[in-house]
Order: sequence, then structure tokens, then C-alpha cells
Amino acid sequence: MDIALSEIEAAAERISKFAVKTSLLRSSTFSRFFQAEVYLKCENLQKTGSFKVRGAGNKIMKMAESGQKAPIVASSAGNHAQGVAYSATQCGIPSTIVMPATAPLAKVEATKGYGAEVVLHGTCYDDAYTKAREICDERGAVFLHPYDDADVIAGQGTIGLEIMEQLPDTDIVLVPAGGGGLLSGVAAAVKQINPNVKVIGVQAEGADAIARSFREKKRVCTDTACTMADGIAVKKPGEITCELINRYVDDVVTVSESSIYAALTFLIERNKLVVEAAGSVPIATLLENKVDVAGKKVVCVLSGGNIDISSILMVLQKGMIARHRWIMMDVLYIPSSTSMQKILRTFSDVGANIFSLNQEPTVHPMDMNEHRIHIFCEVKDQEHEGILIRKLEEDGCRILTDI
Amino acid sequence: MDIALSEIEAAAERISKFAVKTSLLRSSTFSRFFQAEVYLKCENLQKTGSFKVRGAGNKIMKMAESGQKAPIVASSAGNHAQGVAYSATQCGIPSTIVMPATAPLAKVEATKGYGAEVVLHGTCYDDAYTKAREICDERGAVFLHPYDDADVIAGQGTIGLEIMEQLPDTDIVLVPAGGGGLLSGVAAAVKQINPNVKVIGVQAEGADAIARSFREKKRVCTDTACTMADGIAVKKPGEITCELINRYVDDVVTVSESSIYAALTFLIERNKLVVEAAGSVPIATLLENKVDVAGKKVVCVLSGGNIDISSILMVLQKGMIARHRWIMMDVLYIPSSTSMQKILRTFSDVGANIFSLNQEPTVHPMDMNEHRIHIFCEVKDQEHEGILIRKLEEDGCRILTDI
Repeated sequence: MDIALSEIEAAAERISKFAVKTSLLRSSTFSRFFQAEVYLKCENLQKTGSFKVRGAGNKIMKMAESGQKAPIVASSAGNHAQGVAYSATQCGIPSTIVMPATAPLAKVEATKGYGAEVVLHGTCYDDAYTKAREICDERGAVFLHPYDDADVIAGQGTIGLEIMEQLPDTDIVLVPAGGGGLLSGVAAAVKQINPNVKVIGVQAEGADAIARSFREKKRVCTDTACTMADGIAVKKPGEITCELINRYVDDVVTVSESSIYAALTFLIERNKLVVEAAGSVPIATLLENKVDVAGKKVVCVLSGGNIDISSILMVLQKGMIARHRWIMMDVLYIPSSTSMQKILRTFSDVGANIFSLNQEPTVHPMDMNEHRIHIFCEVKDQEHEGILIRKLEEDGCRILTDI
Repeated sequence: MDIALSEIEAAAERISKFAVKTSLLRSSTFSRFFQAEVYLKCENLQKTGSFKVRGAGNKIMKMAESGQKAPIVASSAGNHAQGVAYSATQCGIPSTIVMPATAPLAKVEATKGYGAEVVLHGTCYDDAYTKAREICDERGAVFLHPYDDADVIAGQGTIGLEIMEQLPDTDIVLVPAGGGGLLSGVAAAVKQINPNVKVIGVQAEGADAIARSFREKKRVCTDTACTMADGIAVKKPGEITCELINRYVDDVVTVSESSIYAALTFLIERNKLVVEAAGSVPIATLLENKVDVAGKKVVCVLSGGNIDISSILMVLQKGMIARHRWIMMDVLYIPSSTSMQKILRTFSDVGANIFSLNQEPTVHPMDMNEHRIHIFCEVKDQEHEGILIRKLEEDGCRILTDI
């Protein structure tokens, strides 16, 4: 199985009416960090907030062109749901999306907003998938696979065309990989235009089926797919996608969860872009120095931006702790040698802002009289944190910090 | 005083090497919300994270062209600092930026990163300004005003040129206003190209010097400038800017702080864009229905994206409460009629996630035996919140929610 460049070009023409040609932004910050020219392909700014609309759009438009008017059914808790709903509505074809009943309300509402009927069923993707197949049989509808479909892959490949048009002398393209639709499509496009450009797939360490498939040169499924990057948490990569990846891709690397957190925080703080966890793995790759990019022109495909507010809050809070802006600590003291008054005065003198303070029993005291205060506070930076801790120690306290 | 279109066109040519032509993105979400065609001019994705690099760049390039090689001095705690530092370095001219010693470390580091010498002085902008003037006198340097300067205004006006090129049939442009440099520049450009396009300035209610100046048709200064939108918290608008605004602008409106919070949250959640508070006031205007946009093509100038992580956290946390995802409540109960066990079971049955629970003394009890539990918890949505509260009331509790 192959995807010809002409198929990808035809896909680009088909989806041009309802998907946007996303910006390729040069990042000064990352270029300086990594001594390279780093560009961001902003699929987080794509219609429906992710690249999925390209593949779904191509598939549905092609069906419509061939006179196929059957309704469309898909199962998804995420970006595929919105991509299918939006594309089908644009083509005037009814769509039904089966989502787990546990799907976030915001995603359910967004999918309905794009014009789909939403059926909530079961508690996980597999339940929704089974239900979607039932509905297909009942209604004579067409099931739209999220990645293992040549037309879907050709649609995702249009990103590769745009990159080569926007930055013809690209050296390396870093692409997130879950089921493999995006990676195989981009690789097929880029390599058929210029085989010298390196295309590298990125997975999360806890969901590495494609990385294993690439190493073993055959499709490998995993028992678990555990990562905060829900967009690429896939146990069964596609058969077509694995074949194309093994043909066109130069390497597949994995990144840790903590690098994903750090990448997300940098993208928000420095690049002013909200990117979902799956979309930030190319930047995580650079942070981990997994690929030699020095002096090269590197394109990072930021595949989507659909992350909910509570996840952003969680990531940024971890970021505040990692950057020594927030501290959680136990202040242990013996009343005969120091006092609460002295401790509070130190916080006041140093200018540390206390969010919460709790006196709690000490579980393993060094001394039977040792008291414990659990404090969550804000400081300016690591130096300021050091001053606070040193002064508390001078007061006679023992400090334990935790995360 | 006027700014000729040719001056703005010359500015666009000058800054083309180091400022980017920012994207104009159509927002499906806002277009649907407001029954209009809403476009976002993304100056948050500009070099240095704000439009300031355009004005500073034009001024400094023009000085360099005329053989002027004196060092540059500016005072700023914000975007102007970074814009001047970056532009001066690009032109090979040394720059010194005086910042209040209280400026956030991230902004100080960014300004140094762009190649400026940073002098920390005093605790507010006025202190930094005085020091900057002293340094100018000592070193024979040129002081670069952030907005009341024709070359700076012409530079900001290049945004107007780009808008009219990117969307020639624009009906309305909404522009944030503080000192007035951005508003007067954009208005001068747009109105000289097409006088039928409406240009409307937006200020925060607590910092409305330009709105007053516009109403009274003369420059008015205010005693205070109180808003979370630090980029437009200005008491003294410019003389040149006020004159141009009174000539070219159709209206100046004000928006509330709560609309600014809501706008910021929407931009992050729906548009995947990180925008600073000052940059989100055009969206706040739409949320407040301050301008009739139905059926029109409306461009919102998102002037910058330099907001720190702790401010984003604060805004998103308020957003979670406003959307009934987070609840802070006092659960008041009388042990003879209900129990802690029953209350905890209700939280468990309803599936509400408790972040913190504190038993605290009741200050104004309805009954001497009334106990108080302060609970901070997470629910799915407003309906889920209603179910939780109703069940607790059925348990015999009295519920007080607060913010």
C-alpha cells in the first residue's frame, strides 16, 4: 500500500474550502535554546482545534464526490469527533458520533455544535466503538476510522505539502504519533517531495506502539497506553500507517511525561500558544535532546490545541513548583528553641506570600516536642526560596520540602 | 500634527526585516457567538510578544538611517522594554532600559535576552522614568517615548496596513488603548485607506483617560489607572495620540474587569491563543455588546501576549468558578439532625471531588450547635453542582456558597 503524492495534492484541493492553511511560525526562543532554526506548524489553530479535520474532510469529500450519501458514524472522545462532525456538516452529510459517557462536557458540546448527533455510550473508547459499529449496521451508515484509512492519511499528508511550500529547505520534521495517521501522511508527502528531509515520529514513553513497530519492522500492539497526552494514547496503531511509517520515516523517538509538561508550559509562556499534550511532544523531543538539530531547520508539528482548562491549570501549577515559584514545605520546630511568632516574622521579612498554613501532628518527630506546620507559599524565584529556607533554619527550624 | 499614509508605508518597509506580518485568523467560535465575521489580528504572536516592536523598530531604524548612532534609553516595566531592546539590538545600537526593581523577573530576563542593559530602579514606573531621563543626560543618549512620538505611531500604524491588505472589506476594527500609540497609528492608517471603516478604541473602565479625552475633545489625564490590564493602565495619554484619535477614531468604549477575565479564558479555551489582559479588551467589548457588529466583518487587534503564568492561573481559576466547575462552600449542619458521615457519603455518591475540607468555628450560627465545614471541591457543571447542593440540603445541611 502506498499513498501517491498526487493523492495528497488532490486532498489539499478538496479540503481547501473548509480547512485552513495553518501558519508556520519561527520561534526565536526555541531557536536560541537549541542553536537551530525552529519552526512551529500551528495545527492547534486549525478548524476544530486539530489536524483531524484534514483527514476526515478528505475522506468525506471524496465519498460525496463519488455520489456516496450514506450517513457517517465515528467513535471518539477527542479530536476525531470534532473533525468528523465539522467536515460532514460542511459536506451536507449527517453524522453520528459515539462518545464514552465519561467524555468531558466541553468536547460533547463542541461536537454537537459542529452539527453531529452525539450518542453517549459506555465508559471507554472500546464501548463507544462497539456501539458505533452497531449503529452502522442498523442504519447502513459508513464507519469512519480515525487513522487506518488511505484517504484519511492522504488528508493528514496535506500538512507535509504545506510545510514544504512554506519552508522549502526544511531539514527535519518532528511529528506526534499515536495511531500513525498524521505521521504516515506527513512522511509520505515530505519524502516524495524531497527524500533528504528527515521525518521523525514522536511518542510518549507510556504509549509507544509505533516506536516498537518501527524497531521491529512490523505492526506491534501494546497492552497499555498510559500518558497525559490523550491524543496519542493508542494501543493499536494502524496496519496501513505502520507500513507507511516503516517505509518513509527515519526514526521514532519517545519522550517522558515531565518533558511534555515542560514543553506545554514553554509554549504557553514563550510562544503564546495553547497546545494539547499530544501536540507538544515535538518540543519535548528538543528539550530531551533526542534529535541532533544544531544548525538545522526544524519543523515541529503542533498537532492540536484541545486541552481543557483544568488540565492547563494542572500543568501550569506543576510548572510553578518546578520553577521554584511555589513551595510546599513542612516547617518543623521545637517550641523551646523557636516560636510561631518568629517563623511568621521571617515569612513577613522575606516577603513570601502564604497561600495556606496548617499546624498538623508530626508523624516521625526528631524530638517528642517537635511541632509541624505545613505551608504552601509563593516566592519570587529559586534564590528567594533559598533565602527563605536559610532564614527559617537560622530560626532553629528543620525544613522538609515536597512536591 | 498628522501621520501621512506614506510615512506608515515607509515604516512597514523599514521594519519588514525584523518584525513579522502577523496572522489574521478567522474565529468560528466568536463569529457564531456574535452573528458576525470575527477576525483576530495576532500581535501576541509578534516578535517580543507584542506590537511594541513595530513602533520602536521604526523609530530606531529611522534614527540609524539618518546617521544617528547615540545609545537609546527607555523606561518600562512591560512590552515597550522588550520592543526597544530587540529593535535596538537588530539595528546594532546599544540600549539601556530602566525598569522598576519590582518588575517580574521573567520580563527583566527577557529584556536582557534581547540584548539591552537593564537598570533596576525604584518601585514604580515614575521612578524608572526619572532615572532614565538622568541616564540620558549623563550619556548623551536618546530617550524613546513609548507612544507620544510620530515615528512610533507610524510604526504601530503598520498593523492597520496589514489588516486592510489581509481583509480589504473590513467593516470595524477594535483596538486596545492606553497611551494611544496603537489606536492612533491604526486609525490613521485605516482611515486614510478607507474612511468608511469604523475604528473603535477600547479601554478598561478603571483606566479611561482616552475615552474621556475623546468625549471632551481634548487631552484629559486621570489620577488613577486601575486595571489588571497593565499594558493599558495609563494615566497620561499622549498629546499627539489624543489629537490623532480625535481626528480619526469613531468611538472609544470601556469594558469591565470581569469581561476581561472572561475574554482571556475564551481566547485560551476556544482560540488556543495566550493573550495578555490589555490584548483581550476587543473581545471583552464584544462580550459586553458595546458595539453593534451583527453581520459585519470585525477585526479585533490582540495587541500582545505577555502575561505571566501566575496571572494566567488566577484568571483560569476564576473561570473555573464562574463556570460552576469549582465550588467553595460552607456546609452548615447540626450534629443531632445529620452527620459528617452522611455528608461525606453524599459527596461520594454524587461524585464530587474534594480539594480541601476544613472544620471551622461558626461565627454567626443559626443554632448554638451548628457546625461549619468549609469545602473546596470540583463538579462537572452547573447541573452537577445543583444535584450536590440539593442532596446536602436533603441531608439537613444549610449551604452557603462564596467566591
